[in-house]
Amino acid sequence: MTQPQLQGIAASPGIAIARAIRIDLEEYIPEKTTVQDPKQEVARFRQAVEAAGEQIEGIREATEQKLGAEKAEIFEGHLLLLEDPELIDVVVENIENDAVNAEYALYEVSQSFIEMLSQLDDEMLRERAVDIRDVRGRVLNLLRGVGGSDHTQLQEECIIIARDLTPSDTAQLNLEAVRGFVTEIGSRTSHSAIMARSLDIPAIVGAGAAIQEIQNGDLIVMDAVEGQVWINPDSSSLEQFRVNKARYDQRKAELAVWVDKPSLAKDGHRIELAANIGKLDDVQKALDNGAEGIGLFRTEFLYMGRQELPSEEEQFQSYKYVLEKMAGKPVVIRTLDIGGDKELPYMDLPKESNPFLGQRALRLCLERDDLFRTQLRALLRASQYGNLKIMFPMIAVRDELFEAKRILKEEKQLLIEAGVAVSESIEIGMMIEIPSAAISADLFAPHVDFFSIGTNDLIQYTMAADRMNETVSYLYQPSHPSILRLIRLVIEAARQEGKWVGLCGEMAGDLASVPLLLGLGLHEFSMSAGSLLQTRELIAGLNYAQWQEHAKQALTLGSQQEVQAFVQEIQKGENE
Amino acid sequence: MTQPQLQGIAASPGIAIARAIRIDLEEYIPEKTTVQDPKQEVARFRQAVEAAGEQIEGIREATEQKLGAEKAEIFEGHLLLLEDPELIDVVVENIENDAVNAEYALYEVSQSFIEMLSQLDDEMLRERAVDIRDVRGRVLNLLRGVGGSDHTQLQEECIIIARDLTPSDTAQLNLEAVRGFVTEIGSRTSHSAIMARSLDIPAIVGAGAAIQEIQNGDLIVMDAVEGQVWINPDSSSLEQFRVNKARYDQRKAELAVWVDKPSLAKDGHRIELAANIGKLDDVQKALDNGAEGIGLFRTEFLYMGRQELPSEEEQFQSYKYVLEKMAGKPVVIRTLDIGGDKELPYMDLPKESNPFLGQRALRLCLERDDLFRTQLRALLRASQYGNLKIMFPMIAVRDELFEAKRILKEEKQLLIEAGVAVSESIEIGMMIEIPSAAISADLFAPHVDFFSIGTNDLIQYTMAADRMNETVSYLYQPSHPSILRLIRLVIEAARQEGKWVGLCGEMAGDLASVPLLLGLGLHEFSMSAGSLLQTRELIAGLNYAQWQEHAKQALTLGSQQEVQAFVQEIQKGENE
Repeated sequence: MTQPQLQGIAASPGIAIARAIRIDLEEYIPEKTTVQDPKQEVARFRQAVEAAGEQIEGIREATEQKLGAEKAEIFEGHLLLLEDPELIDVVVENIENDAVNAEYALYEVSQSFIEMLSQLDDEMLRERAVDIRDVRGRVLNLLRGVGGSDHTQLQEECIIIARDLTPSDTAQLNLEAVRGFVTEIGSRTSHSAIMARSLDIPAIVGAGAAIQEIQNGDLIVMDAVEGQVWINPDSSSLEQFRVNKARYDQRKAELAVWVDKPSLAKDGHRIELAANIGKLDDVQKALDNGAEGIGLFRTEFLYMGRQELPSEEEQFQSYKYVLEKMAGKPVVIRTLDIGGDKELPYMDLPKESNPFLGQRALRLCLERDDLFRTQLRALLRASQYGNLKIMFPMIAVRDELFEAKRILKEEKQLLIEAGVAVSESIEIGMMIEIPSAAISADLFAPHVDFFSIGTNDLIQYTMAADRMNETVSYLYQPSHPSILRLIRLVIEAARQEGKWVGLCGEMAGDLASVPLLLGLGLHEFSMSAGSLLQTRELIAGLNYAQWQEHAKQALTLGSQQEVQAFVQEIQKGENE
Repeated sequence: MTQPQLQGIAASPGIAIARAIRIDLEEYIPEKTTVQDPKQEVARFRQAVEAAGEQIEGIREATEQKLGAEKAEIFEGHLLLLEDPELIDVVVENIENDAVNAEYALYEVSQSFIEMLSQLDDEMLRERAVDIRDVRGRVLNLLRGVGGSDHTQLQEECIIIARDLTPSDTAQLNLEAVRGFVTEIGSRTSHSAIMARSLDIPAIVGAGAAIQEIQNGDLIVMDAVEGQVWINPDSSSLEQFRVNKARYDQRKAELAVWVDKPSLAKDGHRIELAANIGKLDDVQKALDNGAEGIGLFRTEFLYMGRQELPSEEEQFQSYKYVLEKMAGKPVVIRTLDIGGDKELPYMDLPKESNPFLGQRALRLCLERDDLFRTQLRALLRASQYGNLKIMFPMIAVRDELFEAKRILKEEKQLLIEAGVAVSESIEIGMMIEIPSAAISADLFAPHVDFFSIGTNDLIQYTMAADRMNETVSYLYQPSHPSILRLIRLVIEAARQEGKWVGLCGEMAGDLASVPLLLGLGLHEFSMSAGSLLQTRELIAGLNYAQWQEHAKQALTLGSQQEVQAFVQEIQKGENE
């Protein structure tokens, strides 16, 4: 296969083959002219703003119907921009005072906002700059009477090539015709990327200035799994791409079958497949991929990329959103895991020589209990909106759990006394990610409702090998007998007390590890949403009773290599 | 008790109470004069040098008789200085060329050496500056005809107060009269400190310029356990000091009884008490404190505080020295444990985000096998001079052990082929300091002759808490059930294969932990020499069979606190 001509960020997976259509590759920059009648110019501007509002309202309604109220919210933001005095009133003032044309005044005023916001190290504010650009483009088009490109009218199969698709552009794509898009700028979390995933069209963003080489009508192959683009490939490569695409699409259709099925082993043993999420947007993806719950909600995103601690109300709204969205399905929310390598500039945490062995997560929360109590109150208040389970991270010794539970109980009592409704059925659990906690899981089991094994950290500590350090990466061995033995210990300790055990590291979605984890008796597998369906399919082919025996044997093997060979051998035998 | 007036470094333990004698507090700085006959001045200088040589030879012989050949070596170095052309010939040239007095020429030439050496970040070279100062002082005294203070003539009980006792001063102290010494400068490893420990007189070094406040005849109390000095204390304090001193001396005498006894529990169960050493000097101290072997020889000192890697020959001489000195008693030498937090400037190791979880010790040695092979050859060559056991640190998975053993075998084969004698009975063992190794000790046991549990690191990794980080120091819990369970696992795995287990962390000498370690069936306890005798005494009072039962029970307790209370309760019962 030939080398790809472009490499970008795979923002929405899939493979597409179609002709290119370039849109919006160059930005219109208005010239400054003097107007004779500034009043009339202002009127012309206000007319355009009004017309833009009507257009946006139309897009908003269409998006709400097609993608739901949440995705349509972007356009409510756009409507608000059209009422923003700092933008609109200042443009009007400039037209009046300087007797300049509306196009120029709008461009200049909005440009200063865009430049300021684009420079900030805050993704949300950078996205706001994209919104301003989007709205400005629309008003400018109306002022110029050019109408803008109407992508809803695209009829032939095509791949859109653009500098940066605005949310309006993306929402208006004619899905009958558009097979994918490639943009020059953008990141995995930009609005257009998120929308592409919602619309389920392949998208590659941030492909760089090289997209300017693509001409209208070029035959484009985009592999939005790898983020690669080929322009006019030769016929033998093209043949191969078509085969790959067919294979990919078929596999996708096969997996889609599993979305609404329960997670059952061949012999009927039931487990739960849950998703790890790190942002509110991930919830929808989890549901789309058949998640039976959220096994790990990392609350760090609420604290990062901002200037100050999130308020209790802000946190409450986020937790409530996820709980409501999951509609009674279990949602395990982990209390704050910062400190160590995850820094918060506004908190001024001391530098540590070995941050992974330092004052992280619960250790920090017990020290800074103001922080902790705020989060717990937000969680308790949100608890009545769904099936909340609270989980404490980085516990090594029992006193830490006792202290966390004591504080939680205090805050609960205070809320109840203040007349706030709090669910009476919140489960309390802990992460098992420190060897000490795994080795003495029996000491913890009577005091929690569940364990969730965090294998990424557990492996790191058990092997004494920083998982970010390349030179010792050979020690990241999820299937090493030591790790399997610790997992077994934890599950056994929980079973004795009738508690359940989840696992929320990468290992839960690792197809080579899943059979052993099933055999060890794991109750809940929590992974990134993208791995859920293939795991459900895999488990449906496994016999639980047999894997219980296999797992027992695996614990006696000498190395990860031996364990992997053993599992492979069995799977080969079963597939023959 | 009143606050001490001075605080210094406790260089040789003990408590002393006596009158102060100040010596050498001010240095003689010769004036520059012109001499009429430089030739005659050179002759006068040579005469003084010769006389100094005779004096030093006398001190050397006396020291050899009193303290042995090793301690007397310092004075061989002094004799060599008197023959050093860079010193003596340059002085002679200066006298001849500049027609200056010998005192001035000697002072100036030596001063430039002293200043240069003193600034270096190398302890051995700094000590060399002390030697030059010592020899210069002697020659200057001879030139001036002042004879120098003769400390051999001190008759009354006294405590010496000095800027820095030179080795000559220290060797010449009249032990009948001198009760201790306090110096302004110096470190625990300066020659005078080492000699004080050999002579068994209390010493405090580095007490600072404040010693100038002490006058001849002041009554001095020095607590060289804590490094504290009191000047003319009031009578009630003095009374208390006398009580403390009597108690200390009595305890010392009690412990001395245990030096030559075997390490037996009350019911006759025998264990081995060994010493951890980090320098060649430590061997004597280990023997003086009744060590039955060296349980951990940290070879890092050979690599640190220098400009380049030590040669194979240099290493060979060091290993041979320790093995011969221990005369057939077991000596466990650990291969290099650098990397991580222990840096070698000349090796240019990469900076790591979490050095304790990085490329340390054997991980580095397997990567840099030139380094490793040099050390192994030195060890193999030294093996015939005693009872050598080689130990590999920081092993997490079995392949690392296999690789280390493979390289060792290769080097042994090469030496044998080259006709070098290598012992056939070298035991090969490994540290257990990573949770993975403890959890899968059964997988390692068939492939080693012994384990040695390194609890300092094992606790750090099992608790995921940097032992150098104050904020998480509460997690350094040697008696936590998790740690005890890992130790039990290791001992059980070894017992199955008929191998022995040592423990070489601080825990081995921790009196609260020793009974449990005994009960868990530990074979060898290795600790700093200073803890050996009290541990032997403690073990003699413990019933092994009973502590086997107690230890089993301790493993089921919920926290370190509960374990400690449990052990205390039993010991209280036994002492009643």
